[in-house]
Amino acid sequence: MKPDERLTAYPTNLHSTRPTHPATPPARVSRRGLIKVLGAGAVGAAAGVGGTLALSASSADDTAGQVVPFFGSHQAGIATPAQDRLHFAAFDLSSAATRADLVALLVAWTNAASQMTTGSDVGTGAVTGPPAAPPQDTGEAFGLAAARLTLTVGFGTSLFVGAGGTDRFGLAARRPAALADLPAFPGDALEPARSGGDLCVQACADDPQVAVHAVRNLARLARGTAAVRYSQLGFGRTSSTSTAQATPRNMMGFKDGTSNIKAEDNAAMDTHVWVRPAERPSWMAGGSYLVSRRIRILIEPWDSTPLTEQERVIGRAKGSGAPAGRNAEFDPLDLAARNTSGEPVVDAKAHVRLAHESHNDGAVLLRRGYSFVDGTDALGRLDAGLFFLAYQRDPRTQFVRIQTSLAGKANDALNEYIQHVGSGLFACPPGVVPGQYWGQALFE
Amino acid sequence: MKPDERLTAYPTNLHSTRPTHPATPPARVSRRGLIKVLGAGAVGAAAGVGGTLALSASSADDTAGQVVPFFGSHQAGIATPAQDRLHFAAFDLSSAATRADLVALLVAWTNAASQMTTGSDVGTGAVTGPPAAPPQDTGEAFGLAAARLTLTVGFGTSLFVGAGGTDRFGLAARRPAALADLPAFPGDALEPARSGGDLCVQACADDPQVAVHAVRNLARLARGTAAVRYSQLGFGRTSSTSTAQATPRNMMGFKDGTSNIKAEDNAAMDTHVWVRPAERPSWMAGGSYLVSRRIRILIEPWDSTPLTEQERVIGRAKGSGAPAGRNAEFDPLDLAARNTSGEPVVDAKAHVRLAHESHNDGAVLLRRGYSFVDGTDALGRLDAGLFFLAYQRDPRTQFVRIQTSLAGKANDALNEYIQHVGSGLFACPPGVVPGQYWGQALFE
Repeated sequence: MKPDERLTAYPTNLHSTRPTHPATPPARVSRRGLIKVLGAGAVGAAAGVGGTLALSASSADDTAGQVVPFFGSHQAGIATPAQDRLHFAAFDLSSAATRADLVALLVAWTNAASQMTTGSDVGTGAVTGPPAAPPQDTGEAFGLAAARLTLTVGFGTSLFVGAGGTDRFGLAARRPAALADLPAFPGDALEPARSGGDLCVQACADDPQVAVHAVRNLARLARGTAAVRYSQLGFGRTSSTSTAQATPRNMMGFKDGTSNIKAEDNAAMDTHVWVRPAERPSWMAGGSYLVSRRIRILIEPWDSTPLTEQERVIGRAKGSGAPAGRNAEFDPLDLAARNTSGEPVVDAKAHVRLAHESHNDGAVLLRRGYSFVDGTDALGRLDAGLFFLAYQRDPRTQFVRIQTSLAGKANDALNEYIQHVGSGLFACPPGVVPGQYWGQALFE
Repeated sequence: MKPDERLTAYPTNLHSTRPTHPATPPARVSRRGLIKVLGAGAVGAAAGVGGTLALSASSADDTAGQVVPFFGSHQAGIATPAQDRLHFAAFDLSSAATRADLVALLVAWTNAASQMTTGSDVGTGAVTGPPAAPPQDTGEAFGLAAARLTLTVGFGTSLFVGAGGTDRFGLAARRPAALADLPAFPGDALEPARSGGDLCVQACADDPQVAVHAVRNLARLARGTAAVRYSQLGFGRTSSTSTAQATPRNMMGFKDGTSNIKAEDNAAMDTHVWVRPAERPSWMAGGSYLVSRRIRILIEPWDSTPLTEQERVIGRAKGSGAPAGRNAEFDPLDLAARNTSGEPVVDAKAHVRLAHESHNDGAVLLRRGYSFVDGTDALGRLDAGLFFLAYQRDPRTQFVRIQTSLAGKANDALNEYIQHVGSGLFACPPGVVPGQYWGQALFE
């Protein structure tokens, strides 16, 4: 079966009335205009150009119309300059779901994602199609531009080994060694309902309605096969992943991610983020591992802390973001410096010291997190913090190594003001080639 | 005591180390640049210009730097063209709070709001002030532009009559007749923890971090006097309140608020939104009444509904927003039209019919609601919907009249797909004159 035939012919059992759509809509059409021109012929021609189509919105659109290509050797949403807004969702497969159901879901998601990321509706759209059937798209993004939407999929540990050690989908033997369960860290207060998940979808866009629409429509396509386990909106990015982006501030009021890996640094991306071609399992070559942590910030104690103490805890100046003892944000940390009293200029327990690669055998992460506020808890405190997202080549030597340095009251001074309440670990497969589906190599 | 002296001299007991600041920072300074030039002399001169200062951000800022004047005859955030993002919070006064504490809180809030709405930090800011004291601003908006931030305050029914009928603050005699408790409506499923509140703050901005920052800093100033009862983020506006704004789509995928009052229609604003000078109580003249309803949308049943049924329920075309039987969004509703079978073209239970002013003794509302997604409920369903906000001159003849038409399974067909889970009613006092504080006339 040739790849194109697979997508057209795959007997998806998710929406029997839903025509399967080719993977790539034509370039340079707005969401509004897509319906009129979408057709297998035009699409086939576009898809034939290959995996690096730089689709662009119509020239009438502003920057919100920018399209991030869905297809490519890596999944979008990792090296993509961090968009402003997030909707993240973890899914669990139903107990009745089979391996064929899982594949059908990934096919349907791939089709839908390849449409939505160009600013198109799903399937036949929100306002066309058989009037007696539910619309194939929920419609709240109808008329909105692509807004740099990316959709990034990951496979959780429980997809490979289910509860009780069952091999539900015949994938146990293909579980990556790097996808080892995260250890329990001192101070963790993980809520099971906000942790784990068989699958994850990271939707990032500059328009929150576009990100929300994307997750909602993928959840809808999953109905009967998988259900949302938890989801998280992030209202503002807390990292720069491009040298072109200014460093944003997190909910502690500090610049965050100054020393983050930047996507323009290909060597760093290859060293720290992308799984290499020679690494096992081969289905992960070109992929990356995602660690998600819902980190509650204890806003009220932090806000009662003097500026000097805040700066000691972080190890940077709150205003400029400069490392302690330096002048400018991007000045290098000097962890050896001592003041005239012989005390270290960067405190021994400062977050930047303990998180620094020199303290962690060279381990670094591509951070891509978002601030959240989810209303108020039962005590009237803001339920706010950082939804930490970090991509890496091997969590065992990266996230786990660094978090081992940080966790616990005896280590990172920041621990007095934060609490990890959710955790996820996902293997994000490589990018999708037109005619294939997300993670296809895992199933072959 | 002259007004300016009141603000300077008022013995706020909220932050003993916090210098009281005059109400208006100077015009045309960015948040970043404010600290250097803020001084009583410059501020006094600016404040002297009067209540309609059209503050503007520095010319280097883009449209995100636009400032909505805080001072004026009406509170900002009502007639202001609806910003993109919302953070709404309801507060309860502590049981120990006195009338003097309440006034001190409103003074402190007024000062802080007059700073933040220009893009300034609160007080001495996030990175200056005594290093041994907590910064007077939490810092996450440091360097961000004003983003059209508005802050709008309202007084809940429980501020006038507390639990058990107590008159905690000596305000019972000044309670407006229009601030009558909302009746229970058929189908209501109100959660007490998401309803009511002694005070409310509506923060709207085009940047969600600016709105979140504002509520957080007001909550911080309130510590010891009032605590957040509940708060709500809204990621996207669902109404246009200006003829210059396109109609957005709500989470049902339909254009919402097509026939909303537009702020440019002064006659409609005076008829339906602003309390008139001759109306009682006089402290509300120029104010407005806010009804908030957290309306959960039952996403999954709605998404399973055929397009024709969705359009029958709403009474408009999903694509264009045109009323049933008409061609374009702004074509007038024809509620008398019948098709060739003699059936009404706009269904007898259609939302637009039952909500229409001709069905409700001419009652209309200024709607200013926002879509929300608060993750997922215990059943894996998106906790999503509309945080409905509506301003009006008299809720008894406006919201209550309309909702009486809509509520209940026998009425609005939409009720099959929505549920009201939170409710609030607030008297929003008139605008603030420089040197005075929010709602001052209520206390004199």
